[in-house]
Amino acid sequence: MSSDLKSKFLEVYDTLKSELIHDPSFEFDDDSRQWVERMLDYNVPGGKLNRGLSVVDSYKLLKGEELTEDELFLSCALGWCIEWLQAYFLVLDDIMDESHTRRGQPCWFRLPKVGMIAVNDGVVLRNHIPRILKKHFRSKTYYVDLLDLFNEVEFQTASGQMIDLITTLVGEKDLSRYSLSIHRRIVQYKTAYYSFYIPVACALLMFGENLDDHVQVKDVLVEMGVYFQVQDDYLDCFGAPEVIGKIGTDIEDFKCSWMVVKALELSNQEQKKLLNENYGRKDPASVAKVKELYHTLNLQGVFEDYENKTHEKLVKSIETHPSKAVQAVLKSFLGKIYKRQK
Amino acid sequence: MSSDLKSKFLEVYDTLKSELIHDPSFEFDDDSRQWVERMLDYNVPGGKLNRGLSVVDSYKLLKGEELTEDELFLSCALGWCIEWLQAYFLVLDDIMDESHTRRGQPCWFRLPKVGMIAVNDGVVLRNHIPRILKKHFRSKTYYVDLLDLFNEVEFQTASGQMIDLITTLVGEKDLSRYSLSIHRRIVQYKTAYYSFYIPVACALLMFGENLDDHVQVKDVLVEMGVYFQVQDDYLDCFGAPEVIGKIGTDIEDFKCSWMVVKALELSNQEQKKLLNENYGRKDPASVAKVKELYHTLNLQGVFEDYENKTHEKLVKSIETHPSKAVQAVLKSFLGKIYKRQK
Repeated sequence: MSSDLKSKFLEVYDTLKSELIHDPSFEFDDDSRQWVERMLDYNVPGGKLNRGLSVVDSYKLLKGEELTEDELFLSCALGWCIEWLQAYFLVLDDIMDESHTRRGQPCWFRLPKVGMIAVNDGVVLRNHIPRILKKHFRSKTYYVDLLDLFNEVEFQTASGQMIDLITTLVGEKDLSRYSLSIHRRIVQYKTAYYSFYIPVACALLMFGENLDDHVQVKDVLVEMGVYFQVQDDYLDCFGAPEVIGKIGTDIEDFKCSWMVVKALELSNQEQKKLLNENYGRKDPASVAKVKELYHTLNLQGVFEDYENKTHEKLVKSIETHPSKAVQAVLKSFLGKIYKRQK
Repeated sequence: MSSDLKSKFLEVYDTLKSELIHDPSFEFDDDSRQWVERMLDYNVPGGKLNRGLSVVDSYKLLKGEELTEDELFLSCALGWCIEWLQAYFLVLDDIMDESHTRRGQPCWFRLPKVGMIAVNDGVVLRNHIPRILKKHFRSKTYYVDLLDLFNEVEFQTASGQMIDLITTLVGEKDLSRYSLSIHRRIVQYKTAYYSFYIPVACALLMFGENLDDHVQVKDVLVEMGVYFQVQDDYLDCFGAPEVIGKIGTDIEDFKCSWMVVKALELSNQEQKKLLNENYGRKDPASVAKVKELYHTLNLQGVFEDYENKTHEKLVKSIETHPSKAVQAVLKSFLGKIYKRQK
């Protein structure tokens, strides 16, 4: 991705922010305007921006020629709506998970002046999305479809977060709830729709497509989102900390990771007992026992196998798509994540 | 309001709930279905339902004749969307305010199995509104206006909550931030739009009206909403606990109440000093001093005066409206709150 695009994208952030803190639907004063500006700068633009930028990339591939200034702005604005959606989820997730840091700085709710106001700030972030959409897309024929799309994806993400929360209830460490099928449902709903499906869906709507005609695109992207999360789970355990930029703690945190559900699936009674006794414990000896079992069960080989088969299946599915432009969009996503090390 | 209408209204709740826990956009299992059902039953239908029922009442007055079965169902469904909106705000507000009880039972987040999952439950409640709207209104010409309306009112409510939170920051008891103008902005945005404006706006949309033609209706209802909250603030201090059903603690809680902003406005330097020294303290002697000052400043008389003038102004404004049906809607709202004792 070009650094030109990234600087244009960040320019659009400034425009959107300025519009939001001067929104005539609310009478701002200096204090509230400052609060919102600080909250946005702290929470919205500090990530990798992959989701947002991929709207612009996808739209370019669909169109197949240079974008007009207007198209560039609008695709950036839709990209930012997804980044806003992500910021909203992360601010609230950090509160629920009692996290300490995010993107290398304290979580927003950890700032002394913020605290539980962060709950409402999450709500404000969420409310900015329809403000942006209304301001820039109200007159488009696809406006109502955009609203429906963001509503549906938010609903699915919140539902995925719900099953994650009630499955991995703190205090009730019960591995018998974990299975490949619950893992898949959590990942699909909590991550795949908003990370993989919605950027392409936004680009398709802007390009004049009807999303009802693109069920296959949705299925492929959701499958890719699941694959992406499985990679994440794998790298948390077997990735190189100096490459992924953190030391994984899924075992200690009793996460419903693909690693543990695969291990449960492949374990005999004795190995299951070992998992029950050691998964979700902070002490290094327990963690080492779990990792040893992962080795014994050859989860690295199992993962490689999953990765190769998934890649093959996705490529085949993509190549049946009638539009070469859509194929290019999907292959671009797949290329970015296949065999990633971080 | 007839008990017939209320039982019909509650019947519609059961229908909507059943649709939501079988929503095909998400793969429920028994645990998640049960969780949502329990969460809805605990948080949505237990209030007075005034906001929801007033959509039906307003639509009846606009139409001027018996509703069809379909119209009755749809106006109830819109009413429930407002009750869902209220439940969403209350679940999250209780977390932010660290409240203990709500509607005579522990706050949802206080239940041992719930805790911080309540944040996501608030988000789920919010997401149910567009699900209900899509299922029952997608084909209506006013569908996009309904989405815009709920989005705008939610934005205004969250913005009002924001200025309330940052103005009355715990730990920084600073009366100099309080004024009639900030009180008005908090009340207008945090309460009036979603309690008074949106029920009538829903009825108007269902009746085929364009909300752009009803700015006057909005202004009257927002003014009524402010008046309603001023009454609330007054009754918290001077209402009869056996009538209002609780013992007010706005003084102890350092609330930005109409009482204290009026007192500040009317106080000399010495009286302001008394307020600074005693407002927001738990001890009964301080509370008594504040109440004594309210008596000295004749806030009861000032309130009566405000009430009479506001009533007169509202009636005059309502009577200039060209439609008798719209007048009837607005007068019905005003009649329900004028000189209320609880």
